[in-house]
Amino acid sequence: MANSPTGDSMVQRVVRVLESFDSGRVSQTASEIARRSQLPTSTAHRIVGELVETGLLERDESGAVRIGLRLWELTTRGSRALGLRQLAMPFMAEVQAVVREHTQLAVLEEHEVLFIERLSARNAGANVTRIAGRLPLHASSSGLVLLAFAPPELQEAVLSGPLREVSQETITDPRRLRSKLAEVRRLGFASAPGFIEQVSSGIAVPVRDGSGTVIAALSVVLPRERAGDQEAVLVLKRAASRITEAIAATGFLSR
Amino acid sequence: MANSPTGDSMVQRVVRVLESFDSGRVSQTASEIARRSQLPTSTAHRIVGELVETGLLERDESGAVRIGLRLWELTTRGSRALGLRQLAMPFMAEVQAVVREHTQLAVLEEHEVLFIERLSARNAGANVTRIAGRLPLHASSSGLVLLAFAPPELQEAVLSGPLREVSQETITDPRRLRSKLAEVRRLGFASAPGFIEQVSSGIAVPVRDGSGTVIAALSVVLPRERAGDQEAVLVLKRAASRITEAIAATGFLSR
Repeated sequence: MANSPTGDSMVQRVVRVLESFDSGRVSQTASEIARRSQLPTSTAHRIVGELVETGLLERDESGAVRIGLRLWELTTRGSRALGLRQLAMPFMAEVQAVVREHTQLAVLEEHEVLFIERLSARNAGANVTRIAGRLPLHASSSGLVLLAFAPPELQEAVLSGPLREVSQETITDPRRLRSKLAEVRRLGFASAPGFIEQVSSGIAVPVRDGSGTVIAALSVVLPRERAGDQEAVLVLKRAASRITEAIAATGFLSR
Repeated sequence: MANSPTGDSMVQRVVRVLESFDSGRVSQTASEIARRSQLPTSTAHRIVGELVETGLLERDESGAVRIGLRLWELTTRGSRALGLRQLAMPFMAEVQAVVREHTQLAVLEEHEVLFIERLSARNAGANVTRIAGRLPLHASSSGLVLLAFAPPELQEAVLSGPLREVSQETITDPRRLRSKLAEVRRLGFASAPGFIEQVSSGIAVPVRDGSGTVIAALSVVLPRERAGDQEAVLVLKRAASRITEAIAATGFLSR
C-alpha cells in the first residue's frame, strides 16, 4: 500500500510527520519536518500540505505548521486519557486545595511515566512535569508506584536496564531500586525526595480500577522540606480510593 | 500519491479513520470504522492495523480500537490549545474558587465554539459543555462573545445562515442577534440565560492577546437564578485581563 523505496507505508510516513512535533518544536517548516522525520523533502511537503488541507495541521503567519486544533479535538474526545482525567479531576482539585503545590495524574506508557494532568498553584515550587510529558519510571514518585505494581516482566526489564542518574539522589543501583519497590508496595505510597530536582520531592499513590489493578499514579510535588508530609500521603490515599469508587461506579475503563 | 478510485489520497483516508472517533464512539471495530468513514472494509482494516502498530490507535480486550495515548500525547504536546489552556488555568481556578459551578475556556474553530478546558465543582448544576466539545456560536455565552468580536464576514455569515433553536430561549431572529452582539461589545460580556438549557445560564467575557485581538472566551455556567450575578462578571473580567497580561508577558501565541 503505497510503500516508499525504504519500505515504509504512507500511514507510517504520516505518523512520522506527526511525531516530529513536540513541546520543544510546536511550530516547524515542512523542510524541518522532512529533516526530522527523515522523509524526502517533496514527500514531507505533500503530506504536510494534505494535513493542512484537512485541518490536522495548521499553517501560521510565517508559513510554518503546527498541530491543528482539529487533531487535538479528535484525539482528546476519543482518548481514554481524557476519560480518566475528567473522572479524577474533582478529586485532584481536592488534593490540590490541601497541598497547594502541584497535583498530578500519570499512567504507564511504553516503559515510561506519561503525565495526563497537572494542577499547579501559581506560586508553587520547582516541578519538571508537563502534561503529555514523560519521566523515567525509576526516577519519579509516580514512576516508582507504576513500576512497583507493574507486571514482573516490566520490573525485571527496568531493573536490568541502565538506570539513568537524573539527579544525584536518583536510585541507579538495581538492588536498592528493588528494595525501594518492595517498600512502595508495603507502604502504599512512594516518596522520591530529590530524585529529579534537589529542591523538590514527589509523593505518589496508586490509583486502582474496580478490579484492583493499578491503572494510574496520583502524586504531588512539594518543596524538599515537605518530603515527609504525612497529611499529603493521607489526602492522596483518600483521593485515590474515591477515584477508584468513581471508576467502579461508571465502569468507564471497560467501555 | 496512492489515490483511491474515488480520488481521495491515503492521507485523507487516514484522516477519515481518525475522524470516525468521537466522544459517542470512543471504541469501534475496524468494520464500524469502515462504515462510518465510507472506506472499503479491506482499506479500513489495513489503515487501522497500521495505526495500531504505530501506537496511534490502541486495541482493547474486545478487539475494538480507540485513539491511542500516543496520539493524544503527540497532539497535546504540540497544540496551541494546551499552551493557552496552561497559561489560563491558574486564573480559571481563581474564577472557579469564587463561582463554584463551571468555569470554561473556549476558542473559535470553524464557525463554532470549541471548548478547550472546563473546571466543574462536584455538585455543580447542569452544563452540556465538554472539553473538546463544540457549541453553535449564537447559542452559548462563549459563542456570543467570540462572534461579537469576530471579523464582520463571519458575523454576516452566521447572521444570514439558519439559527438553530437549541432551547426555547435561543435567539433565532437575525435582527435580535445583531442587537445582542452590539450589547456584548458595549457591556464587555455576554449572558445567555436558558439559551441551551432552561435551568442554566452562561456568562462569558472576551480574552484578548497582547495586541487586543480577542482569541478566546472565558465563561461560567451557573444555575438560572444566578443569571444576573454581577460578582461573576467582575471575577471573569479580572481573570481575563490577567490572562492577557500573561500572554503578553510570555508572547506564547506568536511563537
